[in-house]
Amino acid sequence: MPPLTPQPTPALFTSLASLQAACQNLPGPNTAAQQAIAVREATLTKPAGSLGQLEQLTTWLGGWQGRATPVLEQVLCLVFAGNHGVVAQGVSPWPPEVTAQMVHNFQSGGAAINQLARIAGANLQVVPVAGLRPTADLTTAPALSEADFLAAVQTGYHAVPEQCDLLCLGEMGIGNTTAAAALAAGLFGGAGTLWAGRGTGLDDAGVQHKAHVIDTALRTHAGALTNPLETARTLGGFELAAMLGATLAARHKHIPVLLDGYVCTAAVAPLAKLHPHGLAHTWLAHCSAETGHARLAKHLGLSPLLSLGLRLGEASGATLAVPLLRAALACHTGMATFAQAAVTERV
Amino acid sequence: MPPLTPQPTPALFTSLASLQAACQNLPGPNTAAQQAIAVREATLTKPAGSLGQLEQLTTWLGGWQGRATPVLEQVLCLVFAGNHGVVAQGVSPWPPEVTAQMVHNFQSGGAAINQLARIAGANLQVVPVAGLRPTADLTTAPALSEADFLAAVQTGYHAVPEQCDLLCLGEMGIGNTTAAAALAAGLFGGAGTLWAGRGTGLDDAGVQHKAHVIDTALRTHAGALTNPLETARTLGGFELAAMLGATLAARHKHIPVLLDGYVCTAAVAPLAKLHPHGLAHTWLAHCSAETGHARLAKHLGLSPLLSLGLRLGEASGATLAVPLLRAALACHTGMATFAQAAVTERV
Repeated sequence: MPPLTPQPTPALFTSLASLQAACQNLPGPNTAAQQAIAVREATLTKPAGSLGQLEQLTTWLGGWQGRATPVLEQVLCLVFAGNHGVVAQGVSPWPPEVTAQMVHNFQSGGAAINQLARIAGANLQVVPVAGLRPTADLTTAPALSEADFLAAVQTGYHAVPEQCDLLCLGEMGIGNTTAAAALAAGLFGGAGTLWAGRGTGLDDAGVQHKAHVIDTALRTHAGALTNPLETARTLGGFELAAMLGATLAARHKHIPVLLDGYVCTAAVAPLAKLHPHGLAHTWLAHCSAETGHARLAKHLGLSPLLSLGLRLGEASGATLAVPLLRAALACHTGMATFAQAAVTERV
Repeated sequence: MPPLTPQPTPALFTSLASLQAACQNLPGPNTAAQQAIAVREATLTKPAGSLGQLEQLTTWLGGWQGRATPVLEQVLCLVFAGNHGVVAQGVSPWPPEVTAQMVHNFQSGGAAINQLARIAGANLQVVPVAGLRPTADLTTAPALSEADFLAAVQTGYHAVPEQCDLLCLGEMGIGNTTAAAALAAGLFGGAGTLWAGRGTGLDDAGVQHKAHVIDTALRTHAGALTNPLETARTLGGFELAAMLGATLAARHKHIPVLLDGYVCTAAVAPLAKLHPHGLAHTWLAHCSAETGHARLAKHLGLSPLLSLGLRLGEASGATLAVPLLRAALACHTGMATFAQAAVTERV
């Protein structure tokens, strides 16, 4: 079944205005596919609704894929990596060279996400953004110039293939929970203490310092905070901008997206600010243990599939949820109907 | 690594007293295996603790398997089916012949659990208990005679193989959420309204009637409720007794168990009443949408891995969680250490 909704031509983002226009010109789901899925679901040998969210997942997959029978053959796990000038403020217990070391670990198969992608039956692609050049220190300057921001969005946009059944998004970047917290605060208000967490392992004093750094950044960029993309540019980072671009591309290319943790959710939050259904093609896979993620999810109206206390990033939470989608789809496509199985229906 | 704890000889349950003795003679976990797992976990390329509950799952698996490197090669999904005399009271919108029809559907591969077991890489075994002969109507008589109860426990006990890495437990039985609610109320107190839910689809009036039926059963068997096994015999059912037996066997045979929904959890609850760590080798896989399950889990100190609104039984919730265990294990065994990956450790 072909998509019923128009496919906008992928834009070249030559300015924040052209990017904003692309973020506001979004196709909706294929409602005919969704209806066909609901009709079949009602015939399957189980009490109506008894598979709970699995039934909603199948409808979501099919609606955004534009298929009455969704598929999960090509699942892509995209991990964007970037470095952050704000690490100069002492916001992470890990040195910035760990970003590049972990990219190498991803490429060698030794990280958590490599194992999780294998279990999920997903291909893993790692994209170091801007050659891992750090952003500016967001306490004193915009994290990214307009040109760097647009280029990073474009990198994320073009990393999404034309043909893909599901995208799992994630990131790696020492210092990036500070950027994520600042971005969340910039978009939804509230002081640094509301949004700053332990990240990769700060102690109480470290978290307090991080909150102070975020407050400084919010003051520095107070003038930018009325515009979601400007907020993302000044408080975000290379890999955050790339995740925004990838999520936008997925919408234009009819690919459902599983969102990962705090950094990923903050990165794509501007899309929800720019369009009332800007994140409708995404599902939050996991609620992180990182302070602020549950609050951010609530602001965005996102309900996580899993809450298992992970706080790793790398698309680990997103990828962990893929077997739930496979299970949902297997039930929908593989179960017998009442008629086929000669099971008596309810009174 | 051999188990460090003694393996009791499987008992022949010739009386409630001998069964009770077996329920109180339980091996603990292999703490050496647990310690070895913790030592390796600390060397892997991630911030300490950042895989959240995945790390605890690996320790749990290894501790109960008695292996410093847990495995998940043989995963068995055991579904026990039984019928219930209490359906004469009009507690289900489905006729009792659906139990046998669904057993046939399981055997033909058309049910939800067949698809979920395939995704989980689990073998499925369906055990109709007592030839699907119904229990007595628990509003007027004990659901099971002592002989029938012991035989059903034994059926469950012997359904568990000697060699198995993980057991997923579940059930099918029209009317069995009434038995489960009565059993939960009998063990933990409270009126029927606290424990009665919609089951396979009752309306509000149906739930009210079901609560009344449970209250009647609790009055009928008030004298039995001081003894957990007597409570299970008088208020339970064939498939519930079998799940209790299977969970006991798993403990004796060093096999971790994933518990399914409300009926499964109620069925094994007597083990927690008889031993302070009677359910330590189990993990609640999913919190059902069925009223009462969250309350019962809280009484038992069980935290579910998933809460996806399923209310199907059939071991669907248990089986849905298997990929999470595979993911946990894959990370633990497959990740590189900091030394192997040449990643700098934190300050």
